[in-house]
Amino acid sequence: MIVVLKSNVPEEKKEQLTEWLKEMGLGVHVSNGSYHTVLGLIGDTSRLDMDLIASLDIVESVKRVSETFKCCSRMFHPEDTEIRIGDAKIGNGSFVLIAGPCSVETEEQIVETARAVKASGAHLLRGGAFKPRTSPYDFQGLHEKGIELLKTARKETGLPIVTEIMSRADLPLFEDIDVLQVGARNMQNFDLLKELGHFGKPVLLKRGLANTLKELLMSAEYILANGNGNVILCERGIRTFSDYLRNTLDLSAVPMLHELTHLPVVVDPSHATGISRMVPPMALAAAACGADGIMVEVHNDPLHAKCDGAQSLRPEEFDALAKKIRAVREAIK
Amino acid sequence: MIVVLKSNVPEEKKEQLTEWLKEMGLGVHVSNGSYHTVLGLIGDTSRLDMDLIASLDIVESVKRVSETFKCCSRMFHPEDTEIRIGDAKIGNGSFVLIAGPCSVETEEQIVETARAVKASGAHLLRGGAFKPRTSPYDFQGLHEKGIELLKTARKETGLPIVTEIMSRADLPLFEDIDVLQVGARNMQNFDLLKELGHFGKPVLLKRGLANTLKELLMSAEYILANGNGNVILCERGIRTFSDYLRNTLDLSAVPMLHELTHLPVVVDPSHATGISRMVPPMALAAAACGADGIMVEVHNDPLHAKCDGAQSLRPEEFDALAKKIRAVREAIK
Amino acid sequence: MIVVLKSNVPEEKKEQLTEWLKEMGLGVHVSNGSYHTVLGLIGDTSRLDMDLIASLDIVESVKRVSETFKCCSRMFHPEDTEIRIGDAKIGNGSFVLIAGPCSVETEEQIVETARAVKASGAHLLRGGAFKPRTSPYDFQGLHEKGIELLKTARKETGLPIVTEIMSRADLPLFEDIDVLQVGARNMQNFDLLKELGHFGKPVLLKRGLANTLKELLMSAEYILANGNGNVILCERGIRTFSDYLRNTLDLSAVPMLHELTHLPVVVDPSHATGISRMVPPMALAAAACGADGIMVEVHNDPLHAKCDGAQSLRPEEFDALAKKIRAVREAIK
Amino acid sequence: MIVVLKSNVPEEKKEQLTEWLKEMGLGVHVSNGSYHTVLGLIGDTSRLDMDLIASLDIVESVKRVSETFKCCSRMFHPEDTEIRIGDAKIGNGSFVLIAGPCSVETEEQIVETARAVKASGAHLLRGGAFKPRTSPYDFQGLHEKGIELLKTARKETGLPIVTEIMSRADLPLFEDIDVLQVGARNMQNFDLLKELGHFGKPVLLKRGLANTLKELLMSAEYILANGNGNVILCERGIRTFSDYLRNTLDLSAVPMLHELTHLPVVVDPSHATGISRMVPPMALAAAACGADGIMVEVHNDPLHAKCDGAQSLRPEEFDALAKKIRAVREAIK
Repeated sequence: MIVVLKSNVPEEKKEQLTEWLKEMGLGVHVSNGSYHTVLGLIGDTSRLDMDLIASLDIVESVKRVSETFKCCSRMFHPEDTEIRIGDAKIGNGSFVLIAGPCSVETEEQIVETARAVKASGAHLLRGGAFKPRTSPYDFQGLHEKGIELLKTARKETGLPIVTEIMSRADLPLFEDIDVLQVGARNMQNFDLLKELGHFGKPVLLKRGLANTLKELLMSAEYILANGNGNVILCERGIRTFSDYLRNTLDLSAVPMLHELTHLPVVVDPSHATGISRMVPPMALAAAACGADGIMVEVHNDPLHAKCDGAQSLRPEEFDALAKKIRAVREAIK
Repeated sequence: MIVVLKSNVPEEKKEQLTEWLKEMGLGVHVSNGSYHTVLGLIGDTSRLDMDLIASLDIVESVKRVSETFKCCSRMFHPEDTEIRIGDAKIGNGSFVLIAGPCSVETEEQIVETARAVKASGAHLLRGGAFKPRTSPYDFQGLHEKGIELLKTARKETGLPIVTEIMSRADLPLFEDIDVLQVGARNMQNFDLLKELGHFGKPVLLKRGLANTLKELLMSAEYILANGNGNVILCERGIRTFSDYLRNTLDLSAVPMLHELTHLPVVVDPSHATGISRMVPPMALAAAACGADGIMVEVHNDPLHAKCDGAQSLRPEEFDALAKKIRAVREAIK
Repeated sequence: MIVVLKSNVPEEKKEQLTEWLKEMGLGVHVSNGSYHTVLGLIGDTSRLDMDLIASLDIVESVKRVSETFKCCSRMFHPEDTEIRIGDAKIGNGSFVLIAGPCSVETEEQIVETARAVKASGAHLLRGGAFKPRTSPYDFQGLHEKGIELLKTARKETGLPIVTEIMSRADLPLFEDIDVLQVGARNMQNFDLLKELGHFGKPVLLKRGLANTLKELLMSAEYILANGNGNVILCERGIRTFSDYLRNTLDLSAVPMLHELTHLPVVVDPSHATGISRMVPPMALAAAACGADGIMVEVHNDPLHAKCDGAQSLRPEEFDALAKKIRAVREAIK
Repeated sequence: MIVVLKSNVPEEKKEQLTEWLKEMGLGVHVSNGSYHTVLGLIGDTSRLDMDLIASLDIVESVKRVSETFKCCSRMFHPEDTEIRIGDAKIGNGSFVLIAGPCSVETEEQIVETARAVKASGAHLLRGGAFKPRTSPYDFQGLHEKGIELLKTARKETGLPIVTEIMSRADLPLFEDIDVLQVGARNMQNFDLLKELGHFGKPVLLKRGLANTLKELLMSAEYILANGNGNVILCERGIRTFSDYLRNTLDLSAVPMLHELTHLPVVVDPSHATGISRMVPPMALAAAACGADGIMVEVHNDPLHAKCDGAQSLRPEEFDALAKKIRAVREAIK
């Protein structure tokens, strides 16, 4: 950690601060510049309250040097993580297509959609049984029944399933689920994240609406530090001033996350845009900038969907998109 | 709900849409403008998927007219809600000062701070026992032990206590707590909100970092619709591009929420700014624009606080602030 | 325009408003819903102050129906605009590569870079002679000398030139420039925009850091309405809470602008990211989602660039990128 | 400037960088930490391209220590600046009320409004003659005629006048204006700022919609460094995701700017909120957090205003507000 002092700080105050830091067990390396004095702190600064030091009246600014997300960091684990789910592989060069309806509604709906997306090349089936909804009056999912229907669809098609977990109290229902999704609104539900660390199954962790990449990695760190290294990160749009789409898809997060971490990164263009005709161009863009996978909503009858019909592709639209995604992957090799 | 169609839509397509809407049990009132046709939908549109209709290729835009947060809305409940907690009253003209440390650390710390803030006029004591932290490696609170220490401080001073709940699994520990706080990161933890509706105790609900006022009210609606009308809303800063403070305190939310809802609104300038010397001016500003209360962090020894020392006032600073807040309240009468 | 009244508005107040609107020359179509009354205004509402009406105490909300950017709107001009600059074409299926240094520094630098980018397939040469800089102490460009050097490079390579105009007072120097660029900070310098309408030469208009797509189109409208239809829109990153890159590239603006307007849309991944190694993935993403061109910074010696060296590609990096862009264009056909 | 190198950088690469920095005339102070090497650069780093160094593959991060806005900085000028305009004083403890209509419309309107606001205690009269409008089809102000009417109102009331300048080409019309306002959209119109430095008259500089405080100070620096120290800063709301008001008033900018600079800071709650009934609470909040003045829109007949009627106070509303502002100023002394 580097502490920059303001100019004209009395020697006595400098010494007080230096002494206090030494009491905390740190080495302090003083460097006097033309305007400012800089303190370089040596040792384990991870428990030091950076904001507290920054608020002292003799301090200009503070900068942490060592990253605090050690399990996720590429600095300590240079090789890409590859996650295997059934026959599917994600990361380290392997690309996945995850597709399916926003929420599971009926057996016919989920099985029919699963068959269609499998035929188009999808590797995993998505579908919500527990739905976080802004309004208490909106459809909240089929819960246990939805989980059962997903398993039926898996049995019929062989596709592993991805579905959202909203509360650790529901974990017993997820024993036989392949990938547990943590939604954007729960990205910092730390209690849930810790439990998923112990639970051990692969987790697809969505970035929160207003979370930085560092915060996303810190949330992943809660899972990894509790023993579960199978985490897939997901960019799904952030909240900005821009008002023409539901969210702003932050695609540059993809190459940036690849620098910062060894975990795979997928993109969800359906929630990012909220409009089905915007999904194909943004899915292609995600593939072009190096995403390890795409998760899209596909529904066999969007006009009668119980939620998010507006952003769901029809099976034939997904089929055309899947072909183009493969072509783009080829083009950027 | 109002549906505006694009210009030059073929009659046939208009009729298809109108028929479909009628099938959903709605009355449809057609109005032909110079460029556009407007459909006014009459009846219960609360289950209609607005985004889906907006995505149809013949639709220009959709506008919902009736609010969907009926329990919170001032439209249906014009009178201010007043919440009583022990001797303290919040809302409907009553102003509260809530003060105390970020987290409970020791008996000495919490009792000493409680005595100090009471002497300065605080009505409630705050203090965290469960701390949501971005990093898994940071101090997470004393949990059960912290709850016990808060009760000790209440016994010593008579101040009711406010403390944060992070998971419904911890609810049994909160049976004897006066106000349960829901933190910004859990504002859309709908599972927790529903349980707090059933639990019945007063809830202090913080606005999420990137949530609109409508979303805040929808989250309050989860609590009210499940039977608990004792909800205090809290503005605590939002996330914006602005980089000189931790968050941007959105004070105009105070008069705006007073228009939209009958629930009381308090402001937390400590988390909004993150720097103790910014707390007094922003607390005074909050009082001046009509907040029903202020919640500030006060610590008897900020330099050795386990968290958020940077934003904690010393007791004597809080005392001076409390006096000025009373003067500002007087000035705006 | 649609005006939604609050519930329980007295008849008398409704009539007052209706009378006032009729006085403004509008037809008023009243529709009574279960909770609200809706007024549909018929006629030319373009001069009506929407905010004023929205602020009346009996009004719930107001919605404008007809777009106000008539020259830019695809609604009134369904066909794509194609802009010709020398041999280059932009829009209506034609894709351009615009490349060159951030600022013109020396004859050797600009000519060498121009030759390199031409060899790699660039259609236009970019280079700044007038540089808007946040700090008054930073390098501000070579001004007239820079314009001359750009012309030299054009003569040597045949590439048309794009360069930024900051003030209408400088227009005489731009008589022989092929495309005048308006930077993000000047997107709402309306005085300059009007002059560019009269000037008549093709304009590359960058989206402001915090401007909506509607505002971008309104700024284009200033140019078109003053007689100049040769406007190229440019997405170059917006300002959000996200802090790991200089800006957030908003690629979904590309397909959305293609819906809203007939004007071509190019993307500048260099300013959006600010880091040269992020430029290739984001350029490929832009091509994949349908941009009509890419504008990238290329410098023959980035380490010694006078500005923006950090985001400049070396010529060999640009060459590799150009090949991949062509492959991606092929893949999405 | 401080340059933090990545871990495990080969000695040879460190030396290359050190040599290059020395060639630029800087002293380099090397400090080896447990994980990282830190280079402290001594000398004039103001011309060094921080982004370029940050982009080198051996560099972890770069931090500038000395501020680059030297004329504005409180570090170099600890005393508050007080600006005198006629009898009015702004800053250094003096508070001003600036009031008047959004735009000048008729002699009757501006003179009547001027008389009213003077009677309520306003120190300066505001009114726009040149209006920046998003749409080319909206009312753009009376231009020269408007300037004349402002002078008439000044003659009638003795109030100095504040009015907006949009282009340096219009400067001759502003020879006899007391304070020239630079609007939010022109905050980085550097060409105009430089001219205002030479022009010498007091400038009221509004913060841009998405500009940081540092950028605001840098823009002020353009004026000060060109010889004009009479700059008043103005917070008028920023653009965020929040959608219930036109902008988000960032009041914490007031105490923060007071730390960073010696220049006075006023607040414009009219443009920040866009709704007249939100203006009084936010004006009081601005006074409570230490602003040096308030600028509000007042119109003698808001319902017939040519622009911004929605946010204009009536004279009697302004009178009541002015009284309360004085009471709040008293309360916080």
